[in-house]
Amino acid sequence: MATKYVYSFEEGKKEMKNLLGGKGANLSEMTGLGIPIPPGFTITTETCIAYLENKNTFPKGMMDETKKALVYLEKQMGKKLGDPKDPLLVSVRSGARISMPGMMDTVLNLGLNDKAVKGLAKVSEDERFAYDSYRRFIMMFGDVVKGVGKKKFDEALDKMKEKKGVKEDVDLTTDDLKTLVNEFKKIYKDTLGEDFPQDPMEQLEASIHAVFSSWNTQRAVNYRNHEGIPHDIGTAVNIQTMVYGNLGETSATGVAFTRDPANGKDVRYGEYLIQAQGEDVVAGVRTPNPISKLKDEMPEMYKIFDEICEKLEKHYADIQDIEFTIQQGVFYILQTRTGKRTGIAAAKIAFDLEKEGMIDKRTAVSRVTPRDVENSLFPQIEWKNPKEKTVMIDGKEVQTKILAKGLPASPGAAAGIAMFTADRAKEEAEKGNKIILVSEETTPEDFHGMAASEGIITARGGMTSHAAVVSRQIGTTCIAGAGDVSGIHITKTALEGMNGLTIKEGEWMTLDGFDALAYIGKLPLKKSKLSEEMKTILKWADEIALKEGKGFHVRANADTPDQTKVAIDYGALGIGLTRTEHMFMEKDRLPIVQKMILARDNPEERRKHVFDLLPFQREDFEGIFREAKGFPVIIRLIDPPLHEFLPNEIELREEIWKEKLPKESEKVKLLAELIKLREQNPMLGYRGVRLCLGIPELIEMQARAILEAATNVQKEGVSVYPEIMIPVVAFVKEFEIARDMIMKVKADVEKETKVILEKFKVGTMIELPRAALLSDELAKAGISFASAGTNDLTQTSIGFSRDDAGKFIPLYIELGIFDEDPFVTIDQAGVGKLLAMSCSSAKSVNPDIEFGICGEHGGDPKSIDFCYRSNLDYVSCSPLRVPVARLAAAQAVINNGSRK
Amino acid sequence: MATKYVYSFEEGKKEMKNLLGGKGANLSEMTGLGIPIPPGFTITTETCIAYLENKNTFPKGMMDETKKALVYLEKQMGKKLGDPKDPLLVSVRSGARISMPGMMDTVLNLGLNDKAVKGLAKVSEDERFAYDSYRRFIMMFGDVVKGVGKKKFDEALDKMKEKKGVKEDVDLTTDDLKTLVNEFKKIYKDTLGEDFPQDPMEQLEASIHAVFSSWNTQRAVNYRNHEGIPHDIGTAVNIQTMVYGNLGETSATGVAFTRDPANGKDVRYGEYLIQAQGEDVVAGVRTPNPISKLKDEMPEMYKIFDEICEKLEKHYADIQDIEFTIQQGVFYILQTRTGKRTGIAAAKIAFDLEKEGMIDKRTAVSRVTPRDVENSLFPQIEWKNPKEKTVMIDGKEVQTKILAKGLPASPGAAAGIAMFTADRAKEEAEKGNKIILVSEETTPEDFHGMAASEGIITARGGMTSHAAVVSRQIGTTCIAGAGDVSGIHITKTALEGMNGLTIKEGEWMTLDGFDALAYIGKLPLKKSKLSEEMKTILKWADEIALKEGKGFHVRANADTPDQTKVAIDYGALGIGLTRTEHMFMEKDRLPIVQKMILARDNPEERRKHVFDLLPFQREDFEGIFREAKGFPVIIRLIDPPLHEFLPNEIELREEIWKEKLPKESEKVKLLAELIKLREQNPMLGYRGVRLCLGIPELIEMQARAILEAATNVQKEGVSVYPEIMIPVVAFVKEFEIARDMIMKVKADVEKETKVILEKFKVGTMIELPRAALLSDELAKAGISFASAGTNDLTQTSIGFSRDDAGKFIPLYIELGIFDEDPFVTIDQAGVGKLLAMSCSSAKSVNPDIEFGICGEHGGDPKSIDFCYRSNLDYVSCSPLRVPVARLAAAQAVINNGSRK
Repeated sequence: MATKYVYSFEEGKKEMKNLLGGKGANLSEMTGLGIPIPPGFTITTETCIAYLENKNTFPKGMMDETKKALVYLEKQMGKKLGDPKDPLLVSVRSGARISMPGMMDTVLNLGLNDKAVKGLAKVSEDERFAYDSYRRFIMMFGDVVKGVGKKKFDEALDKMKEKKGVKEDVDLTTDDLKTLVNEFKKIYKDTLGEDFPQDPMEQLEASIHAVFSSWNTQRAVNYRNHEGIPHDIGTAVNIQTMVYGNLGETSATGVAFTRDPANGKDVRYGEYLIQAQGEDVVAGVRTPNPISKLKDEMPEMYKIFDEICEKLEKHYADIQDIEFTIQQGVFYILQTRTGKRTGIAAAKIAFDLEKEGMIDKRTAVSRVTPRDVENSLFPQIEWKNPKEKTVMIDGKEVQTKILAKGLPASPGAAAGIAMFTADRAKEEAEKGNKIILVSEETTPEDFHGMAASEGIITARGGMTSHAAVVSRQIGTTCIAGAGDVSGIHITKTALEGMNGLTIKEGEWMTLDGFDALAYIGKLPLKKSKLSEEMKTILKWADEIALKEGKGFHVRANADTPDQTKVAIDYGALGIGLTRTEHMFMEKDRLPIVQKMILARDNPEERRKHVFDLLPFQREDFEGIFREAKGFPVIIRLIDPPLHEFLPNEIELREEIWKEKLPKESEKVKLLAELIKLREQNPMLGYRGVRLCLGIPELIEMQARAILEAATNVQKEGVSVYPEIMIPVVAFVKEFEIARDMIMKVKADVEKETKVILEKFKVGTMIELPRAALLSDELAKAGISFASAGTNDLTQTSIGFSRDDAGKFIPLYIELGIFDEDPFVTIDQAGVGKLLAMSCSSAKSVNPDIEFGICGEHGGDPKSIDFCYRSNLDYVSCSPLRVPVARLAAAQAVINNGSRK
Repeated sequence: MATKYVYSFEEGKKEMKNLLGGKGANLSEMTGLGIPIPPGFTITTETCIAYLENKNTFPKGMMDETKKALVYLEKQMGKKLGDPKDPLLVSVRSGARISMPGMMDTVLNLGLNDKAVKGLAKVSEDERFAYDSYRRFIMMFGDVVKGVGKKKFDEALDKMKEKKGVKEDVDLTTDDLKTLVNEFKKIYKDTLGEDFPQDPMEQLEASIHAVFSSWNTQRAVNYRNHEGIPHDIGTAVNIQTMVYGNLGETSATGVAFTRDPANGKDVRYGEYLIQAQGEDVVAGVRTPNPISKLKDEMPEMYKIFDEICEKLEKHYADIQDIEFTIQQGVFYILQTRTGKRTGIAAAKIAFDLEKEGMIDKRTAVSRVTPRDVENSLFPQIEWKNPKEKTVMIDGKEVQTKILAKGLPASPGAAAGIAMFTADRAKEEAEKGNKIILVSEETTPEDFHGMAASEGIITARGGMTSHAAVVSRQIGTTCIAGAGDVSGIHITKTALEGMNGLTIKEGEWMTLDGFDALAYIGKLPLKKSKLSEEMKTILKWADEIALKEGKGFHVRANADTPDQTKVAIDYGALGIGLTRTEHMFMEKDRLPIVQKMILARDNPEERRKHVFDLLPFQREDFEGIFREAKGFPVIIRLIDPPLHEFLPNEIELREEIWKEKLPKESEKVKLLAELIKLREQNPMLGYRGVRLCLGIPELIEMQARAILEAATNVQKEGVSVYPEIMIPVVAFVKEFEIARDMIMKVKADVEKETKVILEKFKVGTMIELPRAALLSDELAKAGISFASAGTNDLTQTSIGFSRDDAGKFIPLYIELGIFDEDPFVTIDQAGVGKLLAMSCSSAKSVNPDIEFGICGEHGGDPKSIDFCYRSNLDYVSCSPLRVPVARLAAAQAVINNGSRK
C-alpha cells in the first residue's frame, strides 16, 4: 500500500498523534466530534522524516495529495486559493508529536497576492484590513519562508510611521499600507533577486518546505536536547482555512471558559467583541462584552456556543478554555484547551465533575494541583491588576513599588510596620501593631520576635535558613536572602532596597511570599481558607493514599499544642517531629538552661538544673498529646549544640568592651564559656545524641517528661502514642545506650504511676550518611521507627551548609548543575539514593519499621512522590503544608501505581 | 580407644595446642627440641570440657593417668612428692588454647607439708627459704584452691611485721616465718573447719579441681566475652617441676635475649644473678651481672645457654627472650618467647635473619612493625631511665616534670623556648632560637610561626585539627588538645600546666610527641634516621606491594619543593596531593589574594589580581615538578573558603574598637567583607569547586600555572606528570565544567609554547558522600583518577567536624561507641563502606581510573590495610610518614594475599 501523506481533518483522530502531531490530531478530534472548526488538512510527520532523510526533498506524490486535499478544502469552503473575488486564505503551521512552543515556523494569510487582496477587500468590506493582512503576509513569508530577516521590514514600517508622524501601526491609513505592500515587495526582490510569488501554490509549497526544514534549526535542536525530545520524530504540517471575526457586523471573536475559572461555578465565563480579531479581545483596546450578552446580541450563535461548550466539556471531562470566531454568521472554534483555574476553582470543578458523573474520585484528586491547595490557603495580595501590579487603596487604583526581591521562603502575604530587631518586633506587636521583621538573618534567639511578626524578610540565608524553616513552621510569610538575590542591604536601622527605596523602623511594607517580592506601603490582602470542596477532595486523596498506597500518609512537624491542633485539623495523621529545643528557648527557661550549661562539667549541679526543666517540658508534652488525639507523636530529644542557648559572642564582646566590664563579671565568665563551646562547624559538632550522651541527664529528664506527660493524659481518658526519637545518630551503639536509658526511665515511671502506656516506640533520626549506610545494623539493634532528616542528610551528603549555600545555589542553578534547590526538592540521584537505600536496608531486617521523612522536603510534592516510590511510610511537614502534602501523597500513589 | 587424659611433655608438640593448651604445647615443643626445661605433664583441655560437662567431676581414669605421669616425673627428677628428705615440688598452672593472662588459677610450691619443708630446708641449705616457700604455699592453696581469701593471710603477715617492727617481708626471720606457717594453718582450719592437707596427692587433686573450675569464674567469662574467645574450649592443666635458682652457689637465675634488642646486633644480651630467684633479677635489689660474665663464672653453664639460644633462634627464626634457672648445676629454660625490640633492632634483626637464610623477604617485611619504622625516624627524648622518666643533664640524673598531657598529634620530640604567638615564634626563630609554639589552637594564618617552630602544643583540637594536620605535614612534633585532655590552660602569655607548673614566654620546655607529654625544661634529645637495614627492608616491602599487590603503592602529600624532595627521598612513588592554598597564604601573596577577594564581584578587576598570582604559583609548581623527578604529581585546585585568607574577625573587631577606627578606614571595610563571607559551617560552605566556579579565573590561572610550569620543566629535560584534581565535587557537572576549562587552557598553552606534555590527567576528589555514591557517573563523565579525601569524607559521612569532635571523641571511646578515633583509623563499617563502594563503582565503568586516598588515613597502617582490601591503587600520606606507609602497604598485601 502506498504511503498516505496527507489527512483531511475528517480522516484523523486524537489517537493518531504520532502521525499527525499534537495539533493535527486535536483538530481532527474536534472535527470528528462535529465541532465546527475551520476545515483543513495535515501533512504527516512521516512525510517530514522522509523529507529530511531525502535531503529536503518532498516524497514523490506528496504534492499531488496536497493539491487534492486543497481542492476538497476549496469545495468545503466554497472559496478558491488566489481567487480575485473571494479568495480562500490558509495558515500553515508546524505541529510535532510533543509540543515545542515557538520553536518552529508558522505562516498566516497564505493565498494573498496582488489580485486576491482586492477580493478580500471587497468581501470583507474593509480595504484597510485586506492590505494590512497582505503586508503582514509578505513580511512573514519573506522572513520565515525565505529568510529575508524581519529587520528590514520593521525598518520600512518604522520609517513609514515616522514619515506619517504616528506612533502605532493602527494609525496608518489604507494608503499607507498599500505603499508599504509595495515597499515590502521591493525589499523582498532586492534581497532575494526574485519577485514575491503571486502563485498561491508556489507560496504553499515554499511554506511547507520551510516548516519541515525548521525541524532542524539550531534553536529547535537545542530545545529538544534540553527537553529530552527525540530528534527523529519530525513535525507534521497543518494547513487550515483562515477565518476572520472582523468581516462586518455578523462577525465576532471571543475567548471563553466553560465554567468560571476564578471560583469554579458552573456558568459560562468569557468575553467577546463584534467585528474584531482575536487579539483585540485580549489587547484591551476596546472593552469586550461579557459572554452572557451574546445571548441577546446573537441568540443563535450563543446557542451554538453553549452547545459546543457542553459537548467539549463532556468530551474532555474538564473545564475548557476556548477561542471562537464568528465569520459572517458562521461559528468556528479556533482552539480548545484545558482551562487554567485558581486553587479554589480547581477543587470546586473537580468536586462538581465527580458529582456530575463525568470523572471518578481518582481523576478528581489528580485535577487539583499542590499549588492549588497552597494558594487556597494563604493570605494573598488583593490585586486590582496582577500584571500591572496595581491595587485598590481608598477606592483608587494605585501602582505598587517593589522594594526587594528574595527567595520564596514561606508563602502567603503580610503587611506590617518594619521592625529591625526581634525585641522591638515583640514590643510593638504587644501594642497591637502588625509587624514585618526585617533582619540580616535570624537565629534561635530571635524566635520571640519572629513569632510576633506577620512576615519576615532577611538579607541572608536560603530556602532552608533558620528564618525560612521557622517561618514555614509557624506559618509566617517569609522572604529570605533578599540581599543575595537583589543586592539590597539590611542594617539594624534600615532596609536599603531596590529602586532607591528605603524603609525605616515603623514604616509600612508588604511581603508577597509567593513571588518573594517586598513592596513599600500597606497593600490590601485577602484571606483564604480551605473550601468544603477542597476538604472533600483531600478526604478522597487520603482514602486513595491509605488504601492503594498501603498506609502512605502525611504527618506534621509541630512543636507546640497550638501547632499540633492546626496539624490535626488540617488532616495530619500524626506528628512526625516535635522539636524539643524550642521549649528550652523560652524566656522563663533559658536562664535555667544557661545555668545547666555553666555547670556542665559538674554532674551533680548540672543534674539539678536539668531537672528544673522537667515540669515545663512535661506541661508542653501534655498539651501536645491532648491535641494529637491519639495519633502518634514523634518527639525528638534535644538536638542543637549548647552554644545556641548562649548569647551571640560578638554582641557579648561588644558589651564587655563598651562597658569595660571587669574580669570577674558574669558576662566575662559567660564569654569564656562561649569560647569553650564555640565550634568551627556546629552542624557537625557536639549536638544531638552526642550532647545527650555527654550530659545523660538530658535523656533521662526528657524521657521522664514525655512519659509522665503521656501517663497523665492517658489518665484523662485521651489515647496517647509517644514515639521518642534520638537525633544525629551515626553509630548503632549511640542508639542502644540512649534507648536503654529511656527504657529504664519508662520502667521507673510505670512503677511509680502504676500506669502502663498502651503504645510507645523508640526510634532514630537518619540524618547522617553513616546512619543511612548502616540502617540494617540500626534495624538489628531494634529501632522501631526511623525518620530521615532530609535537611541534614542533604547538608552532609552534598556537603552544603544550608545557612551558607545561598551564596552559590543561584549560580549552580544558572550553570545547570542542578535544576532545583536540593533543600527544596530532594536530590533524587544523590541524597535520594541514600534515603532509598536506608529505607530498604532497614526494612530488609524488619519490615515493620516505620520509615518516614521529617525534613523540609516532607511538604514538597516532587519529594513526596520520590518518598512513595522509595517505599517510605509517611512524610511529615509543617502544619500549614499538610493539605498540600495530603494531595501530593495521593497523586504520588496515582502516578506510580498501588503498592503491593 | 579410651581417651588419653594426660600427656607428658615428651609426648606433646606445638601442633597439639588445641588439646594441650598454648603453654602445654610450647613446653612439649621445647622438650621435643631437647631444650632442658623442668619436666612435667599436661592434663588435656578435653578433660576440662568433660569435667565441666559432668558437673565438676573428673572423668573416670584421669586421676590414675595423673598418678602414673607423676610417678614418671618423680623418676625423671629422682625426687618424690612429699619426700621428707628431698621433696619434689611442682607448680599447677592453667593453659588454654588462647592465652588468657591472669584470668585463671595457678598454684606454686605444691608438695610442701610439715615434713617436706624440713627436707627442702636441708637440701637447699636455706631454712628461711623453705619456710617462706611453705607459708606462701599455704596461703596460695588456701586462697586459690579453697577460697579462704587472701585478706586474712595478709592481715596475719602485717601483724607479724608490726610486732617485729619491720617494714619488708624479707626482714622477717626464719623463726618469724615458722610462726607464720602455724598461724596460716590455723587461719586455714578456722575458716574451713578442716586441717591444711598434709597429703601431697590431696593437694594436687584439689589444685586440679581449682584450675578446671576457674574456667567458669565470672571474671574469665567476661574476659572471653570481651575478647571473643569461645566458652567451650576449656583449659589444660600443666603440672611441672619447680626449680630454684637460689639453692646455693651452683644455682643462678637470669633473663636474656638471643640478640641485642636495642640495636639488633647478633650478640647475647642479658643479666643473671648467682643464688637468686627470677624476681630478684628484675626487682633491682641486687645488681645483676651481664650475661657475658657467666662465661667466666660458669663456663659450662654458659656453653649450654649459648647452644640453647642458637637452637631456639633457629627453631623460632626470631630473636628470643628467655628466662633460665640453674639449680645446683643443672640448667633449665623456664620460658622462651619472641623478644620485644626497638625499631632499629627490628630492622637489623629481620635483615640479618634473611641474610642468614632463616627467613625469607616476606617474613622479614612482616617482622618489622609500622611503629618500628616510625620510632626509627623521629627524634626522641634520650632517657636515662624511661620508666622513671629521668634524663642525664650535665652528667647528673635528673627527674623530669610533666607539664601537660594531650593527644599524640605528630610524633617526634622537640625542645625549645615557649612562644605564644606565631609572629613571636617566627621572630625568635629568626634569631636562631629553637621554638615551641604554645597556642590555644592554630589557624592557617599561623603557618609561618608553625613552620618556624620545633614543636607545637595546643589546648584545643584533635588528632586532625589544623595544628595536627599541618604538623604532620611539615614534620613538626605536635601535642594537640592538651586543654581537653589534661585540663591545662593556654593564654596569650602563659601555659598553666599540670602539677601547678607554669611556662611563660622564653622558658624552655620539651615535647614528646609519641606519648603526648610536655615536660618543663630542656631535655636531651637523640636524632634518628633510617638505618641501611631498614632501607633494605622497605625496598623489599615495595617489591612485594608492587608485584603481589599489582601496583599498590605509596604517594605523599607535599605542598612545596622541599616536602616533595623529602617524600621522594623517603620512597614515595608520586605526590598524591599538592595543596595549593598554602601558596596563597605566604606573606608576599596574601595581600594580592585579599585584593582579589575584595574585588570578587567585579570580574575584570578580580581577574587582574588572580593573574598577579600566576608567576608565584608557576614557580612553586616548577620546583615541585623538578623534585618529583617524573613521578605523577596530583595538584588540587584551591580548596578553602575565602574567609580563611582574611584576618580573624574578632581580632579585627578588637582592633577597630580599641583604635576607634572611623567607618571609612580600610579595616572597617575589611570587616564588612569578612561579615559577608562569614559562614556558619565553612566546611560545608563556599569552597573547592564551588568557589572555583564562582571565580572561574581561579581555575584558569591555576591550570595555566601548572601547565606552564610543567612545560618549562619538561623543556629542562626533566620528565613531568601533572594531574589536576578538582576538590569538593558533588555533582558530575561541576567536574565537567571545570575539566573543560582546564582542557581549554591546556590547548592554549600547547599552542603558545608548541610543547606537548607527555602525560597529563584531570580527576576529582571524592570527599563528599554524594560523590562517593555517584562515582560511576563521575567515571562516565571521564575522570582519569579519583582521590578520596578521607578526612572530609569522614566529617560528612559521620557528621563529625574534625575541629570540634575533640569535645566528644574521648567520651565515645570511653563508652565503646568506637574503638579508635575515626580521624586516625578509617571507620571501616561506615566511611570505609562508602569508600569501597566508590572505588568499585568508578572502576566498574572504567577499570583504568586510578583510585587512591590522600587523607590523614593514608599514613595509618590499619587504614592502608583497608585500602588494599578495597582495591585502591595507592595511599598518599605526609612525607615523613612515607616509610611507615610503604611497610604497611606491603604488610597489607602479605596479610590479605595477592591481587588477581
